Amino acid sequence: MAVYTTLSAAELAGLMAEYDVGALVSAKGIAEGVSNSNWLVETTGRDGHGARFILTMYEARVAVEELPFFLGLLDHLAAKGSPVPRTIHDRAGAPFRLVRGKAVALIEFLPGVSVDLPNAAQAHAVGQALAGLHLDAADFAGERANTMALPHWHELLSQCGRQGLHSIDPSLPALVETELRHLEANWPQGLPRSVIHADLFPDNVLLLGDEVTGLIDFYFACNDVTAYDLAVTHSAWCFGSDGRFRPEIAEALLAGYAERRPLSAEEHRALPILARGAAMRFLATRAYDWLHTPADALVTRKDPMDFARRLAFYAAEGEKAFSI
Amino acid sequence: MAVYTTLSAAELAGLMAEYDVGALVSAKGIAEGVSNSNWLVETTGRDGHGARFILTMYEARVAVEELPFFLGLLDHLAAKGSPVPRTIHDRAGAPFRLVRGKAVALIEFLPGVSVDLPNAAQAHAVGQALAGLHLDAADFAGERANTMALPHWHELLSQCGRQGLHSIDPSLPALVETELRHLEANWPQGLPRSVIHADLFPDNVLLLGDEVTGLIDFYFACNDVTAYDLAVTHSAWCFGSDGRFRPEIAEALLAGYAERRPLSAEEHRALPILARGAAMRFLATRAYDWLHTPADALVTRKDPMDFARRLAFYAAEGEKAFSI
Repeated sequence: MAVYTTLSAAELAGLMAEYDVGALVSAKGIAEGVSNSNWLVETTGRDGHGARFILTMYEARVAVEELPFFLGLLDHLAAKGSPVPRTIHDRAGAPFRLVRGKAVALIEFLPGVSVDLPNAAQAHAVGQALAGLHLDAADFAGERANTMALPHWHELLSQCGRQGLHSIDPSLPALVETELRHLEANWPQGLPRSVIHADLFPDNVLLLGDEVTGLIDFYFACNDVTAYDLAVTHSAWCFGSDGRFRPEIAEALLAGYAERRPLSAEEHRALPILARGAAMRFLATRAYDWLHTPADALVTRKDPMDFARRLAFYAAEGEKAFSI
Repeated sequence: MAVYTTLSAAELAGLMAEYDVGALVSAKGIAEGVSNSNWLVETTGRDGHGARFILTMYEARVAVEELPFFLGLLDHLAAKGSPVPRTIHDRAGAPFRLVRGKAVALIEFLPGVSVDLPNAAQAHAVGQALAGLHLDAADFAGERANTMALPHWHELLSQCGRQGLHSIDPSLPALVETELRHLEANWPQGLPRSVIHADLFPDNVLLLGDEVTGLIDFYFACNDVTAYDLAVTHSAWCFGSDGRFRPEIAEALLAGYAERRPLSAEEHRALPILARGAAMRFLATRAYDWLHTPADALVTRKDPMDFARRLAFYAAEGEKAFSI
């Protein structure tokens, strides 16, 4: 959660005037997004009936040169019917603008709330929406490398050091060493690729009841193995707050996905190792952030051990976790 | 800014069902309020056309036994026509409920944005709204002592200690000592009293253009000298970001106030000393917080010296600051 930058009412009103969205009515800094400042903005709307938007100011972590990919992807997916927010373009047609040297984008507001503990119907709907995203992105022209792929996990964990990992948990250095070696030796090659979300945690899905109303926060989206995205989502959705695997949620997620985009036998066989990779990816960034986040940062550190346990689970019972 | 507590979607939906406001559509934690958690909540509304609210969860700093005063005051003022948000009562008629042992209230959402640097028309409108609040509160039955009055400034500054104050600025111990002595010897007696807001900073006023659409955050409201509230507002509104006094803003504020509630000669004469008190009040809490806020707190400390300089200004030029 964060609002890093303060914008004055005059700056906000001036910014809104650059868009055809009516006049500024309200703006509240919202505690969302880990690396950007966000406001929930209300305007009088084009028709005078009111409209709402998320205004995002990109802080250090998102590079301006990547915005055309991220924002273009939103527009592409929204046009295809995926439940993602459109980018509002300014009067000159630009998808983002600069304010005080920082890029800002005005993004459609979508209803819905994020659930902590999904039910099976919700997991089913998320599986469907993820498959839809992969299908809808098929003819998107943008390309972006995955900056959080296997070599980067290795690099981040090296920077943590054995001692750093040990300070988090004594079992961590051995787990990381064994699993990294296994992943590097066995990472699947030649699987179908596409644009993937790469970070579809419950935080990044809006739901109304059992319906998906929004997939948001595409700032890790990239081109990579399509089934890896399903493995990421599996690792993020299918465990209870006690860390226990929830087979009924996994089954619903996989079934929902397969309804819209059936997996090939090869993809299905790869899911356990892809999930070990997904768990390693989040273990790597959380361990790095745990050791490198200053104690006074305005950010809540996430426990790396949640994903160490999921990694160990996938290593031991990966086949079971993906049998439908 | 703060969201201290996380509420799950299920908890939020369950809470909304206790009110006659339709079903939950969206909830965003907002970065507002220094001592409470706040969400901007959207529901389908009673008529199905949508409605918005601020959901406040009261953390440590607001005592539950004081909520009937604060929330009752909002309802009283709103009924009289003051631009303050109404409290939404639950189906059983209660103005607040308990969630996980903490009090929560659902409060009307008001449009408008807070300005950093008001213009004269805005200051005039704020003066009018403040006078209106004092008049509308006249027949409110609730009573609450000012827990931030002169004895408390003395107490807070004693707890800072000479050394603590010196660590903020070498000039501070002498200024505080001289001024506290002056205030204690000269604090006016017998002036008209009423319910006052006691914290009407620009943050706590919503404006659309030059119109006041909301006075918010009444959690310091209390019974005290009416003109002291005008002095507080003067000290909060009439200085530029460079700390310089803005006479045209002060003049507009005082004129707007007097249009709706003319000051007696006695009240007018007391304004300079009341403003010295107001500046001391915010100096005291800011100095205390400066020295007592842990470096890793999720709160931005405010520079106590802003109000030390205003205090010195009122001591030297108080008469001029209140001449219309």
